[in-house]
Order: sequence, then C-alpha cells, then structure tokens
Amino acid sequence: MTNDPLVIFTPSGKRGNFPIGTPILTAARQLGVDLDSVCGGRGICSKCQITPSYGEFAKHGVTVQPDALSDWNAVEQRYQDKRGLLDGRRLGCQAAVQGDVVIDVPPESQVHRQVVRKAVDARPMAMDPAIRQVVVDVAEPDMHEPTGDLERLIAALADQWQITDIHAPISVLRGLQPALRKGKWQVTVTLHKGHNATHHTLINVAPGYDDSTPYGLAIDLGSTTIAAHLTDLRDGSVAASSGIMNPQIRFGEDLMSRVSYAMMNPGGDQEMTKSVRAALNTLSIEIAEQIDISPDQILEAVFVCNPVMHHLLMGIDPVELGQAPFALATSNSLSIEARDLDLTALNPAAQVYILPCIAGHVGADAAAVALSEQPGQSDDLVLIVDVGTNAEILLGDKTRVLACSSPTGPAFEGAQISSGQRAAPGAIERVEIDPVTKEPRFRVIGSDIWSDEPGFDAAIAVSGITGICGSGIIEAVAEMRIAGLLDPSGLIGSAEATGTPRNIPEGRTYSYVLHDGTADGGPLITVTQGDIRAIQLAKSALYAGARLLMDEMGVDKVDRVVLAGAFGAHISPKHAMVLGMIPDAPLNQVFSAGNAAGTGARIALCSVAARAQIETMVHEITKVETAIEPKFQEHFVNANAIPHATDTFPELSAIVTLPQVNFNTGGGDNAGGRRRRRRG
Amino acid sequence: MTNDPLVIFTPSGKRGNFPIGTPILTAARQLGVDLDSVCGGRGICSKCQITPSYGEFAKHGVTVQPDALSDWNAVEQRYQDKRGLLDGRRLGCQAAVQGDVVIDVPPESQVHRQVVRKAVDARPMAMDPAIRQVVVDVAEPDMHEPTGDLERLIAALADQWQITDIHAPISVLRGLQPALRKGKWQVTVTLHKGHNATHHTLINVAPGYDDSTPYGLAIDLGSTTIAAHLTDLRDGSVAASSGIMNPQIRFGEDLMSRVSYAMMNPGGDQEMTKSVRAALNTLSIEIAEQIDISPDQILEAVFVCNPVMHHLLMGIDPVELGQAPFALATSNSLSIEARDLDLTALNPAAQVYILPCIAGHVGADAAAVALSEQPGQSDDLVLIVDVGTNAEILLGDKTRVLACSSPTGPAFEGAQISSGQRAAPGAIERVEIDPVTKEPRFRVIGSDIWSDEPGFDAAIAVSGITGICGSGIIEAVAEMRIAGLLDPSGLIGSAEATGTPRNIPEGRTYSYVLHDGTADGGPLITVTQGDIRAIQLAKSALYAGARLLMDEMGVDKVDRVVLAGAFGAHISPKHAMVLGMIPDAPLNQVFSAGNAAGTGARIALCSVAARAQIETMVHEITKVETAIEPKFQEHFVNANAIPHATDTFPELSAIVTLPQVNFNTGGGDNAGGRRRRRRG
Repeated sequence: MTNDPLVIFTPSGKRGNFPIGTPILTAARQLGVDLDSVCGGRGICSKCQITPSYGEFAKHGVTVQPDALSDWNAVEQRYQDKRGLLDGRRLGCQAAVQGDVVIDVPPESQVHRQVVRKAVDARPMAMDPAIRQVVVDVAEPDMHEPTGDLERLIAALADQWQITDIHAPISVLRGLQPALRKGKWQVTVTLHKGHNATHHTLINVAPGYDDSTPYGLAIDLGSTTIAAHLTDLRDGSVAASSGIMNPQIRFGEDLMSRVSYAMMNPGGDQEMTKSVRAALNTLSIEIAEQIDISPDQILEAVFVCNPVMHHLLMGIDPVELGQAPFALATSNSLSIEARDLDLTALNPAAQVYILPCIAGHVGADAAAVALSEQPGQSDDLVLIVDVGTNAEILLGDKTRVLACSSPTGPAFEGAQISSGQRAAPGAIERVEIDPVTKEPRFRVIGSDIWSDEPGFDAAIAVSGITGICGSGIIEAVAEMRIAGLLDPSGLIGSAEATGTPRNIPEGRTYSYVLHDGTADGGPLITVTQGDIRAIQLAKSALYAGARLLMDEMGVDKVDRVVLAGAFGAHISPKHAMVLGMIPDAPLNQVFSAGNAAGTGARIALCSVAARAQIETMVHEITKVETAIEPKFQEHFVNANAIPHATDTFPELSAIVTLPQVNFNTGGGDNAGGRRRRRRG
Repeated sequence: MTNDPLVIFTPSGKRGNFPIGTPILTAARQLGVDLDSVCGGRGICSKCQITPSYGEFAKHGVTVQPDALSDWNAVEQRYQDKRGLLDGRRLGCQAAVQGDVVIDVPPESQVHRQVVRKAVDARPMAMDPAIRQVVVDVAEPDMHEPTGDLERLIAALADQWQITDIHAPISVLRGLQPALRKGKWQVTVTLHKGHNATHHTLINVAPGYDDSTPYGLAIDLGSTTIAAHLTDLRDGSVAASSGIMNPQIRFGEDLMSRVSYAMMNPGGDQEMTKSVRAALNTLSIEIAEQIDISPDQILEAVFVCNPVMHHLLMGIDPVELGQAPFALATSNSLSIEARDLDLTALNPAAQVYILPCIAGHVGADAAAVALSEQPGQSDDLVLIVDVGTNAEILLGDKTRVLACSSPTGPAFEGAQISSGQRAAPGAIERVEIDPVTKEPRFRVIGSDIWSDEPGFDAAIAVSGITGICGSGIIEAVAEMRIAGLLDPSGLIGSAEATGTPRNIPEGRTYSYVLHDGTADGGPLITVTQGDIRAIQLAKSALYAGARLLMDEMGVDKVDRVVLAGAFGAHISPKHAMVLGMIPDAPLNQVFSAGNAAGTGARIALCSVAARAQIETMVHEITKVETAIEPKFQEHFVNANAIPHATDTFPELSAIVTLPQVNFNTGGGDNAGGRRRRRRG
C-alpha cells in the first residue's frame, strides 16, 4: 500500500498512485493515458489541457478536495492571457498532484481522438496519423566532445521523448544547423512513422516551438479527373478540396486506350507518367494557394487509383495490365517518398502512401471504397458502385465480399458526351423533362434555382450555362426515356414521332435540345444519339459488372445499393435505376456515398491503423475478373436497353411508368445494341 | 546415434550427419559452412566448387571411400566442357553424400574469403560485401490468385534463400516485369544490405542467370584531387583507378577559402556541391570506360573525405565548420542512395556509404586512414600523416590513438607552386642536385630513366616535361637545401652567393632553374622563392600538427612514421625529413603507405564488418583541435626553418650534412617566417 495520492483518468479509467508534486502529464504518460503534448511539458504548446473534477466520486471510491492539484501558475496565466483556456481547464504539464484527483482528458487533448465535423460530406476521422510533432532541447556542440548536430538531436529525441531509430533525409539535414541556431537549440521536430516502418523519418526541423499546421493530401487519381483533399493532420478536417482533369486524357480516354498508347509508342508510358506528375504538382500548388499556405507544409500524400493509373503514377509500363493474366508489377501498398514520384511541389521530405491493389483490374481505388464503406461489416447484402471511367464494384456482407472493376468509359464523367464537361460552375447537373410538354428544366452547379424559376438568370450570370456534367447527363437520358423521347433501345425519336420540336435532326439521327443559348452567344446544349449510345455502353458495363458479382454470390437481388464516385453524391437514385445503371433494389435503399474512394484516401491519410486494416482486408476480398468472364459479355449485351424488361425491375414500376415507344423504323441508328464494346 | 554418413568440412571443421543423397551444398548450408552459391543449387553458377578428400583421416576418425560421393553427373560434365573444373573439384550442388566424406572448401568458394592479390599496392581485401546476388525462380502470375510480380519475387526469395525484408526502389520495380518475362520467370537478383539496415534493398533484377560482375567505387574525395578505385565486389580486386582535379578549386584552393566562399556568396555552397557531383559523374563514366563496362554496373560507392568536402558533397552549407566550435551537421556514417547525391551515372539503385567523421576538423578521410593503418593495434608508437591539402594526422598505439587535421594547403599536391601540376605523365617526381656542381637531374612520371641518363629524351617524347608534382617539389626543395642553394630560413641565394647560374633573379628574389625547355618551345621550370614559402607553410602546418599530438601524448619522439596520401607512396622519407615535414624518427622506420585513405575506402567497400569496426573506432579516438590550440601556432612558427635546429633532428645528421649558409642580407624576401598563416 502506498500513501501517494490516487490519480484517476477519464474516460480511459486508467489509475495509479503518484508522489505529491507529479505533473498530471507525467502521470498520464506513465499510465499510458492518451494525453497529447507537443512541447513535452514545457508549457508552450497547450495540447495537454485537462479538466480536474472535484467532489465525491462513489464510483471511483475517492473524494477530490479543492486543493487536489497545485495552484494555477504563471505559465497557465500566460497562456490564459494570450489565447484563453476554457473554464475549469488546466495545463496537464503545470498542474501537479497534491491529493487524490479525477482528471478528465477532453477529446481535443487526445492524440488518437475521433474528430466529429459538422459538414455532411466530412466524415469524422479517427486520428492516428503517421506524422507527429515534438519539441526538443538539443545539447549545444562542444569542441571537446565532437559529435554532429544530428547526433545530439537524436540523443535528445531518445532522452526527452523515448523516440529512437531516426532516419534523416539529406533534405532535412540541410536545414538542421540553421534551425538549431535560430531556435537557440530548441526545435520543433516533425516525424513520420508508417505502420510498417522500423524507423521514424525526420520530415522537418523548425526553430523553437513551431505551431504551424501539418497538412496531408488525400488524392483520388482517376482516369478522367484527379480529386484532392488538403487535410489538417491534427484533426483530420478538410481545409480545401480541388480537382483537375487528368492530362493523360490526350493519350486515350479510357484505361485500355492508354495501355495501347504505351504499347504502340516507345516511351509512351514515361510520357504519361510525366504528364500526370506535372498535374499533381499543379494541383498541389493550387490547393495550397486556396488556404494561403506554402505547399511545403504538405508533409504526406495518400493515393488511391486504379491499377493502370497506379503503374503510370509510379512510372511503370502498364503493358502487362493490358493482357491476361493482368499481372501487377506490385500489388501491396507502397510507402515511398514524394520525390520518388517527382512531387517537387510538396515538402522535400514528404512521404507518400499508396493503398494496396486488389487485383490486376481492381485497384487501390476499390480498396479505398472498401475502407470507406466497410462492406465486410454489413449485416445486409450491399452493392457498392464507384462510378468513374473505370467503375469499382463491391458486393458483400459480413460473410464475404466480392469485387470487380468494369470499364465504363468516361461518359459518366461528362467526357465523350457532345456537350459534356466536368462538374464545375455552369455545368447542368439536374434535369427534369415534362412528360406532357416535353419541355426541360434544369439546374446548374453553383445555384439551387431551377431554370424555370425566378432569379435563375441572375444566379447564373457569372458562370453562364456551359455544358452537362456526369450527373446531368444521367438525369437527361433517364428523363428523356420517361418522357417518351427515347425508346427502350435508346433511339431518339423524330419531332413528329415524339411531338416536340426539341428533337431536331442531326445527320440520320436526332438530338434533343436541352438549352439553346445561341441567341445570346451561348452554347446550344443537346443530347445527341451518340451521347445516348455512350451512356448505354457505360451503364451496360456497370450493370454487367454488378450482375457478375451477384451471379458469383448466387443472388438475384441486393438489399442495399451505395452509389459512390467523385460525383456519386450527385447521382439521383431514381434516374440511375431508370437508366438501368444498377440492379433493382428498393428505391429507399439506394444511397449516395459521395466520393467513397476519396474518403478512403482521407481515412488512410489520418490513420496508420486504417492502413494496416485495408492491407489485411484486400487479402480477404474475392476478386472477379470481368475481362475473361464470358457471362460478363452476356450481361453486357442484355443490359443495353433502357431499362431492361420490367420483370427484372419491379421496384421501378412503383415510381415511374415507362412509355411503350419504338422509334426503330429500320433506318436511323440502331447500332447501340450490336456495337462491339471496346475492351482491352 | 545416427547411421547417416558423416560429412566433415575443412577448413572450418564443421561436421554433421546427413542422409544418403544430400547434396554437399545443402549439408554446408545446414551446418552454416561458408560455401558460396549464386544459383542456389541449380548447377549454373559453379560458385560452390568443393574438393572431396579420400582415404583415411585419423585426425577426424573417418575413412573416406572412393564412392563417398555420388557419381560425376551431366551437369558437372557440361560445366567441365564449357569452362573447365580444376582436377579433383566437384560442384557442391551436384555431388551428393553416399558415405562418410571430408570436403574441403577452397578459398574461392567461400563468400567471406580473403583474396590475396599480387600487386604491392593492392592490399588483400577481406570480403564481406553489402552486395549479394542470388538466382530465384518466381511463380507465374495467376488470375485467380492475383498478386503482384514483386510480391511473388519476394515470396521466392524467402522460400528459396530465406531472405526477407525486401525493399524495392521504384527504379528497380520499373524493370521487374520485363526481366521476369525475358528470363522465363528465373532471374538473378542483386541485393544490398548495409550492416545497420533492417532490410535488403533490391538493386537489380536481371533475366535468367546473370554472371556480370558487380562493381563498387571507393572514392577519396580530396580538396584538390578526387581519386577513385573501381572495385570488383566479388573478390575486392581493383579493376581500374582514376583521378581528377576537384573542380571546387575554382572557389578556393583550401578548405577555409571554400567555407569563406559559401559564407560570402548566397547559394555558393550549392554551387560547389553541384560542381563536385558533376565531377564525380564524369569520373565514374570515365573509370567505367577504362574497362569497358557500363557505369550502370557500379552498384555501390564508398566515400572518404574531410568534413568540409563531406558537407559540400551532401549539399550541406559548411559554414559551421568555419568557426568554433566547428559543429558538424552529422558525424556518424551515412548510408544513403546514390541519387541523394545526384550520382546519376551509377546504377539508379546504387547505394552510398560515407565513413563517419571523427570531429569538425577530422573527417571521414582520417577515419579511413585509421581503418587502413590500424594505429590502435600497433605495439610501437606510430605517427601516421596523410598528406594532402588538409593533412590528417594520427598518433597512437594499442593504448590510445589521437587524431588531428592540419591545414597544409594545396602546395604538397603541386598547386600554388609556380610550375606545379598534379601527378600525371610529364610531371617531375624525383629530383637530385649535385652538391658540388649544383646541377640537377630528375625523373618524370611515366619513365624510370633519370634526365642525365641515355634514352631519357626518347622515354619522355610523348609526355614531354610539363611541370613538378607534389613529391617532385618536396625533393627539389630538400635537395636545394642540401646543395646549399637555400639557407635554413628558406631564402634562395643569388648566383654569386651560391656559385651557380641556375639561381636567376626574379623580382627582388631568386629562382632555381630546374629545367629550361624554352629552346624547344617547352616550359621553363623553376623553383621560385614563392614556391619555397608555400612549401614552408605547408610543412610547418604538418609538423606542428604532429608535434601537437606528441605533446598531448606526452612524448618527444615516435617509433615509426607512416607517410600516406594520394601521393604518399611517392614521398622520399629522406627528403621529407630534410624538409622538416615530419618529426625526427629512425629513417628506416619511415614508411610510405600509399593512399591510406583510399585503401580505407576500399576496405569499407568490400566489407560491412569493416564499416561496423570503423564506426566503433572513431568513438575511441581522441580528437585534438588544432585551430584553437595556442601551442599549434607556437609549433607552427618554430617549424618554419629547413630544418629545425639539429638537436631536434639527430637522425638527420647521420644521412645528410646541411650546409651553414645564410642568404638573408636584410634585403630580398624574408617574410616567410613572419607571414601570417591563413587559417579559418
């Protein structure tokens, strides 16, 4: 039995006896309580704020006297004056034990905290980052005991923080001596330790106590668009988001045409690698500018991407991914340096983590979706569809998870569409067509007002109406089908057959005029027969992939559908089902998950535990290879109509009535169903 | 008790019982016998050659029957036909145990062999390299079990060689898939594992069984010259040697003027870094060309250099080395990648090891000298002087080793000398002056014939006579002193005073004409008063450093002197002593060690154990800082004369009589003794 006072921490419940005078931070450390500190008890970082509780605690069997902690001191007063402390808060490094005490560690003082944000899109992140910052006091050099400044810094880290096995990149070594001298031998050290690493990498050494935020980039590198989230590595919040087109589009719109480009052009793969890396640098600089930080403050990047993008990012010729057995050069996760990818815009010592691939056609993006949506923890059977130029499809529940990818092409992202564009202000994103008048109304990105509502013109004065984005084209095609402007084979009817002058001839086929801005010098935005065919190809591929997984699982229907993708949040479940993008499911069980791949990237960026989790998870997922499965072709051909026979879509009849039209007169275009689908 | 046959290996003496049919290589591996194999028993590399012994071995208690091993087989016959096997040799992977047997492992079949070379300069190297090559058969990809090619290679290394923890740089990943397919899933893998590393780094993957030699570069990066030895990493032999001038000379001839350059010119350090790295690439390409290999075959480089060169190589501003307390950015050894130093000429995955520094003024070059000369293992007190622009001086024996460096300046390397040049064909390297006639004779690099011997003109027809190198100027100055052309203060006498027309006026001082080639359009090679002063400064610094260590050690004389340096092998001990470069010692105890720093670099290149050894050793060496030691100045000033008072040089009087001359008439130059020495 000890007579030392008892210290009880909540919420962990950890407890121990400590001599009078022990700082609370010290007690927390000795008990392994998750109490943050960057300055290590120097009273400068204020990360170790705690709330003592007073009174009787029957549950804990202690009574806490008002003088259970040492008096409020000058360091706390200084912090209070400068930045303010919440009522009842103390600094854990200053408040010392005087008697039995109960100490609450508020969430924001925990390193491994779960930070809840308000925005719907911003999923709470469990923080367990690879990046860590600590303040150390380094011994000054002594001519009679000559050691390097680095060696004394390493000794200080071991002594003051018990952090060992330090790896110092040359880029950091270069700034070490000035930082130590400027900080008068006190520096804030930023360290990185991956979950598989045996060492800590020195990322930055800043003079004195440096409070600048460490940032990371979560990047969803798609075939058509590159989306990035600049993330605060202290709390996981998204400080800025941005996206740009993947410049590799000029080498081929879909994955297989890029693989072909690499095969046909010596050095073609390196050309594509160079272009995507340049775009990533541009994007990094642009996103940093948004919140007015130096891109140098970006210390880590996490990538998710499909296997072809993965290889082209790494500078590996993707040729093997273009032919069976679709062998990846490497399938495991990669922990590399940003400079390995020529990401010169980031901090010179920045680290990169690339999620593992699942198989030759099922990439790190699918892994990221699995990490974000956790199908393996679902009680009901969930189908997750990540819509992009290449669709990642997951089907599963607690018993088993299947995955495949399907080459939908870029139509869903607004590419290969005559008036298509990426989602940006001015793009039509929502469409409704009156089944009687056949007149459309729409909304454009940047405004909540429909085009037939007052104030629309004013609302879009800046952006104008520039084109149709992915969600817009899906709605437009589905609405055209509902309004009887399209027949089930996908053929657009003539003005006579449909009774609307908006169906105008274009060559031997017809287009539907969604918006005519030509009078004001604006664009004529139509949906052409070619657009319909492109969407049909895309949705057939998507549907066929989902059906293939359902065959493999031995089911005819799913309990729940999650639509994900860079524009996943914007797809209307009703229209997706009218289009026949997804198998039949109760409409109220079709959800939009937003950019699940991007969210998966953010989760991995904020947590090394999540990285370990997904690395295990990918080995437990059963991969289904669409490219060699004859049934995929069969499903693909059968899925061409809009929609399929009503008996496969009973749910749909409850929400829409699809007109019995047939515009196929033997002339015109009807090649959609017969056209051979491109596939590598 | 087992009935299995007994297998005894010599010279290790390891023994064990193995079932009939066990290949000798397998038995060796299980016993931990050092028997090489690259192909892992596939009968293609022939590294595992062994010699069975037959008959009675009383010592071992066995009798070996003629049929103790399996019959000579087709694989051995194929190798015999193709390349030949020495009489009595078998391939260890083919010959299998049939009965008790004694197996000798010849030196060339041992991995950790000590290879003895014939050339005097080529020290035998204890081989324990970081580089290792193995052949593996990799499983082909299977669509139904999708893993990356790298993951299957890693599995094969673990399975077939028990090698785990593989790190694959992107540069190697890039070539992995083509190599595996070209080699039909058999590849030769080159791995690197440093003594401190927790992982093996994949350096190269070549198709099939690849027999090409792995090379390393041992580089002595001096202030004035850069010397490199291209070394065969299988046996440690030097395949080619080369040297170039350090292009940093244009920023300052000695270390402190380069530090000044960095201090005075923003970005000046980076300028110097760039120039030395470019020179290293040029040197690497040039040395590879010498033996007609691709520089891509150079897989590792080991550097030794002084601290300022060390920092400039690493791209670290050396400013702290220019002022007390002379703090190094890092003092420990460095294991980095060649690309960290922009050494793009080498293999993209090449590794670099830089020896540890001893102190701010005592660098990795001094550490290399210690590794090569092992003063700490000497029974007698040895003074080791590595002569260069910065001299590294070590003094010690088994009880204690001291080290310092001394800024001698570049005079000993032929720089700052009016007719000076680096050691190359055409340079005067040996000089004799007749004490009576005052006429000189000399030898130039590239010929063994003295200038007054028949055939001299023919011998030097190609190179001509171009200047004086370091060893030449030392001999010239010493011979001038012996011949009475110089007085003890270093002043050159006039023609009248010395009685030779070769002493010609030059301004207010005199020069000695060593060679007048002007009649044939050649150079006039003289030793000027300025040259004498430069040599006096250099040798005083050297001597003062040595004396300082002797003071610290509490001795007045040393038992043995080792002269080292890039031109250490060429310095005549007698002339060095006449000049007063080194403290008095029995002349037969003054040795030339050649380029000890370069040898130290080669030792470290060939052996990771040696790297571990020097890393321990540097912590046991006592560093003496010349720059702040008042006694250094005192010794320096006292050492200016040529030579010092005879009572400090009793040994010298036994070999030469120095004339009692005094040319100081009050006019002329006599500033040598008073001129302030430059020093940072």
